[in-house]
Amino acid sequence: MNVGFIGTGTMGRPMLANLVKKGVAVFAYDVVPAALQSAVSAGAKAVASAADAARHGDVVVTIVPSSSNVVSAYLDTGGVLDGLKRGQLCIDMSTIDPGTSRRVAEAVRARGGRFLDAPVSGGVPRATDGTLAIMVGGDAGDFEEARPILGAMGTNVIHVGPAGAGEVAKLCNNLVAGVAAVAVSEAFRIAEGFGVGAKVLTEVIAKSSGNTWVMEHMHPVPGLVEKAPSNRDYEPGFTTDLMAKDLGLAVTAARELRVPVFVAAAAQQVLRLASSHGLGRKDFSSVYRFLRPSSPEAPV
Amino acid sequence: MNVGFIGTGTMGRPMLANLVKKGVAVFAYDVVPAALQSAVSAGAKAVASAADAARHGDVVVTIVPSSSNVVSAYLDTGGVLDGLKRGQLCIDMSTIDPGTSRRVAEAVRARGGRFLDAPVSGGVPRATDGTLAIMVGGDAGDFEEARPILGAMGTNVIHVGPAGAGEVAKLCNNLVAGVAAVAVSEAFRIAEGFGVGAKVLTEVIAKSSGNTWVMEHMHPVPGLVEKAPSNRDYEPGFTTDLMAKDLGLAVTAARELRVPVFVAAAAQQVLRLASSHGLGRKDFSSVYRFLRPSSPEAPV
Amino acid sequence: MNVGFIGTGTMGRPMLANLVKKGVAVFAYDVVPAALQSAVSAGAKAVASAADAARHGDVVVTIVPSSSNVVSAYLDTGGVLDGLKRGQLCIDMSTIDPGTSRRVAEAVRARGGRFLDAPVSGGVPRATDGTLAIMVGGDAGDFEEARPILGAMGTNVIHVGPAGAGEVAKLCNNLVAGVAAVAVSEAFRIAEGFGVGAKVLTEVIAKSSGNTWVMEHMHPVPGLVEKAPSNRDYEPGFTTDLMAKDLGLAVTAARELRVPVFVAAAAQQVLRLASSHGLGRKDFSSVYRFLRPSSPEAPV
Amino acid sequence: MNVGFIGTGTMGRPMLANLVKKGVAVFAYDVVPAALQSAVSAGAKAVASAADAARHGDVVVTIVPSSSNVVSAYLDTGGVLDGLKRGQLCIDMSTIDPGTSRRVAEAVRARGGRFLDAPVSGGVPRATDGTLAIMVGGDAGDFEEARPILGAMGTNVIHVGPAGAGEVAKLCNNLVAGVAAVAVSEAFRIAEGFGVGAKVLTEVIAKSSGNTWVMEHMHPVPGLVEKAPSNRDYEPGFTTDLMAKDLGLAVTAARELRVPVFVAAAAQQVLRLASSHGLGRKDFSSVYRFLRPSSPEAPV
Repeated sequence: MNVGFIGTGTMGRPMLANLVKKGVAVFAYDVVPAALQSAVSAGAKAVASAADAARHGDVVVTIVPSSSNVVSAYLDTGGVLDGLKRGQLCIDMSTIDPGTSRRVAEAVRARGGRFLDAPVSGGVPRATDGTLAIMVGGDAGDFEEARPILGAMGTNVIHVGPAGAGEVAKLCNNLVAGVAAVAVSEAFRIAEGFGVGAKVLTEVIAKSSGNTWVMEHMHPVPGLVEKAPSNRDYEPGFTTDLMAKDLGLAVTAARELRVPVFVAAAAQQVLRLASSHGLGRKDFSSVYRFLRPSSPEAPV
Repeated sequence: MNVGFIGTGTMGRPMLANLVKKGVAVFAYDVVPAALQSAVSAGAKAVASAADAARHGDVVVTIVPSSSNVVSAYLDTGGVLDGLKRGQLCIDMSTIDPGTSRRVAEAVRARGGRFLDAPVSGGVPRATDGTLAIMVGGDAGDFEEARPILGAMGTNVIHVGPAGAGEVAKLCNNLVAGVAAVAVSEAFRIAEGFGVGAKVLTEVIAKSSGNTWVMEHMHPVPGLVEKAPSNRDYEPGFTTDLMAKDLGLAVTAARELRVPVFVAAAAQQVLRLASSHGLGRKDFSSVYRFLRPSSPEAPV
Repeated sequence: MNVGFIGTGTMGRPMLANLVKKGVAVFAYDVVPAALQSAVSAGAKAVASAADAARHGDVVVTIVPSSSNVVSAYLDTGGVLDGLKRGQLCIDMSTIDPGTSRRVAEAVRARGGRFLDAPVSGGVPRATDGTLAIMVGGDAGDFEEARPILGAMGTNVIHVGPAGAGEVAKLCNNLVAGVAAVAVSEAFRIAEGFGVGAKVLTEVIAKSSGNTWVMEHMHPVPGLVEKAPSNRDYEPGFTTDLMAKDLGLAVTAARELRVPVFVAAAAQQVLRLASSHGLGRKDFSSVYRFLRPSSPEAPV
Repeated sequence: MNVGFIGTGTMGRPMLANLVKKGVAVFAYDVVPAALQSAVSAGAKAVASAADAARHGDVVVTIVPSSSNVVSAYLDTGGVLDGLKRGQLCIDMSTIDPGTSRRVAEAVRARGGRFLDAPVSGGVPRATDGTLAIMVGGDAGDFEEARPILGAMGTNVIHVGPAGAGEVAKLCNNLVAGVAAVAVSEAFRIAEGFGVGAKVLTEVIAKSSGNTWVMEHMHPVPGLVEKAPSNRDYEPGFTTDLMAKDLGLAVTAARELRVPVFVAAAAQQVLRLASSHGLGRKDFSSVYRFLRPSSPEAPV
């Protein structure tokens, strides 16, 4: 089995390394030469363009940073469509807006190809271990065909619906997680102001209606959950920049659907501002720190 | 043991009934004659004022709807302070803002009494069963003394810190729960717009970073969680009005502490608006319904 | 002078009618046959495609409802680019996001054409009178060349900067206007709750730091400003749907620039929700009505 | 004419100095000895308590920083009520929440006094010049009686309605001004990101629907409006802390009235956060600076 693999950056490199380990022949391309070189050192063969990657692969896998990168990788001159073979299966594992994903899916189908959107979650550690969660949108038959390849990169691989549904599922999950992180941070800031201990409050909430995965695993207050990023100066985890991006995609998707989203929009803006003030590469739970005064306040 | 019990409404009545069952003599007062009458039919003796309730009780329990009602119950002419005995313990089980709670606590102490704030959660069903959760703020010794009484009304009774801490803990929990309900509703509205099924999305989120108690127990989309209010036309549970009130108290408390609270403020406003548009007495998870179009939209 | 005119709907039709009155030969195209027929009755000649309109025109004018319509009008098969002549000037008068505008501008330039973005404000009445305000982005020389054509449609024609700047200026203006309408509505709802008269409050604010064009000309409270839409049951004016769209474009543009926008995002969501609840085709000042209770509320 | 004057701080001192200049005998009290001393140097006679100020004055004037200070000044032992004379007129010129203002008004009336709320705007410069704007709530006859005193301190003195109405009018005006400052800042940040000049955008908006007093007089972008605080490193003017306070009072008042306020709440939070990050004593138009990145951002 040959795979054309486009996008060999922070996430793509460990993912293709897992394909190589399973005996897959990987033909890699990236616009950044250093990233491409690193793919070669992981066992891939470098090719000259996305189109070439498509030509060499039975299947195409793409994982790039943004919606416009996906559009370029598929539609630009020298892009996947220029090398696409009749009936070829393309799997886009980027996290992008569902609308763009659907439009690229249509363009691939219009040229006789097939398309799955299959964004991942779990970050670099789970990309390295091959234990990513992968949410897949597209045709059920195509999903079955893609399973072995996806299974080499992730362990929790789930078909969630038609084209774009993988992206939708990922963004919806991250919408709730991102908002919850801000809400938990606000709650603990209030408690702090009244001198209520974070430990006892955590115990109360853990047994009550305010319990969330975010508090259990990524508690924004240091000293309470051992593996939480807050205990290592908010080293990610999942960065504020990436969460701001995903919330932004969710809010934009909502706009196109005419769905009002109040708390998602508010959380997006505060994470964006936190990023502008130096927390972009920290874990998104660092919004808690951003809500604390950075300088002494004057009495009103 | 005698208890002076002030506030015999929807919550107060079943709570005092549990005291009566344990053999406590309850001297009840309420400003609403019908409520007081209903307390009598539950086994309490009616008295003529809050001051009289204090005079007859070894301990005073108050549970009234709002901050200003608590202030009146204690400080007005004929209020608790007018009947307060040296060293008498007062337990306020109302959900109010922590600042007011502290001010009333001070007023009680200034007259030689003692004060605990002990708001409850669980609603009428658990008030009836005597299985409320009770979060208590105040002196640790006073808490131990109050335990038998609180234990007659609730099963999960926890001391969370100094005066006001019970209120803070309750509001902080409800802040997260209220925001989470809006976030989950927004996420499922987006998914719906893209044709992604609510069932599969629930499964994805349940295993991922977006999981919340609210989705597990009070899923806003009907048909997914058997006991959720959404499955019985959003009969509460906990009403939109009460959640809007608690978010409002949290936001006001944050204001007094100068803590910025973005998602709490946004959630407060949307629940307030939902209430204004007819959902005030429905469960707060009905915000999901409010986010759906109520009338056909024109194309732009 | 010949003009190829694409988009002959509510706004496009009266605009091209003004070109016809000035003696311009207009070659019109619209995807909706009825709209195209109405252009013919206003004096235009119908052609079979956007490409044909470009072929017949010395200059191309486009005015269509959304970003994706602009992309289609220029880039689809049979679109403007298929008929574009070397050096031909294209003027897009649609209100769309500045990023898309810039990308279309680049595509036109890549084919040897020139491009101005020139969104309008003033609505159908001023489109009919030829007194639109027109904000133009692009090359200064191209702007001078376009002046006579734009001058036939508008009276306040201003060059605001490079490609995309026209869109940016329009969205930024509407961002402030849209937010102001919500803020004014909130202020007058509070005043109403306290029994403070809208007339005296208007006089106070008019002389103070809260004064806005919106309150002076489109007062959301009926009975205060004669020509305000609120005095004719919120007949637009400028619809809630269009303002929600423009705020959405502004928020999306901000996202792409990583600029945090708190009040714009909040106003976008509340206008979107107002639209979902039946006010989409009313003037956007009807948000005031939306903030009023639509049903009696229960006491908490 | 004798006036008992309570609150001789930054605003109170120049205000009482204007009374002294008109020949009024001022009996001053402040809880801060230095402030009281400074009142003496302005020509007032110091007294030992608020009650004493009431005893010496024909009329009582109070101007203190917060709602709880007003409550203390009137209701504490040694407060105004302890020295109140039958029929005496009290004028509270503090900016506080209308609900508290009404409650104090009732307490004064219950003891046989009369009460006006008369908050001011214009800051220290206009307090010094005696040209404050003064918005007055209360009985029309009382207002006429108070006119000579208020006229010594301000030039734009207006009766806006019943008890509390002065506070309401001030908060409603400031709500719009505060929200507008954030909206204008967001708009100019977006324009900046697209390379659209602030000068030309200002000209466009000034003639269009987005025009506001705030942009005309307190333009948040430096270099455009000569007297704007932005041109002197955001020296106030009106501080971020005070605007955050007033928006907070407006949002709390809205909560008590059950009025949803989306943009007011969002603006309150962002100004509060700006204050926490060092801009509390700058002019509130410095929110523009806060929305700019304070540190370089990483690409996503």
